[in-house]
Amino acid sequence: ADIDAGKTKSSTCANCHGRNGISAIPMYPNLAGQKEAYLAIALKAYRDGTRKNMVMGPMAQQLSDEDIADLAAYFASLDPSGK
Amino acid sequence: ADIDAGKTKSSTCANCHGRNGISAIPMYPNLAGQKEAYLAIALKAYRDGTRKNMVMGPMAQQLSDEDIADLAAYFASLDPSGK
Repeated sequence: ADIDAGKTKSSTCANCHGRNGISAIPMYPNLAGQKEAYLAIALKAYRDGTRKNMVMGPMAQQLSDEDIADLAAYFASLDPSGK
Repeated sequence: ADIDAGKTKSSTCANCHGRNGISAIPMYPNLAGQKEAYLAIALKAYRDGTRKNMVMGPMAQQLSDEDIADLAAYFASLDPSGK
């Protein structure tokens, strides 16, 4: 997984989850400092439809395994306090 | 929601998600400092089965709306860096 590539790919994510991985929207989770393995599992579950969400499903379906690995590594690398 | 009550109710959660809300298991998410509204949505989705998980489903089914509110408030109140 490539953290820098994940950062590049994360611009869409940032609209809801924050540029620093801290969501501005209470319904949406913070991603900063979250477990990398969990983030990848969540994105794959959205992609394959086992986790259903009208926002995340269509976006996750655009992602390759490599994209998911890069995004998970990037958000896991961020400071969980948002700094 | 009652943070202190949430702490009391959180002992089962701590087995996987950590006493400080930082999971010791890479597959499982950190909860410390997560958005309160998101945590409540997640627990309700596990409870009603719209989010399917063999571990979380049966546990969430034990929870009342008040339990969920208390647990969400408690984990949201924890330091996201785990301190």
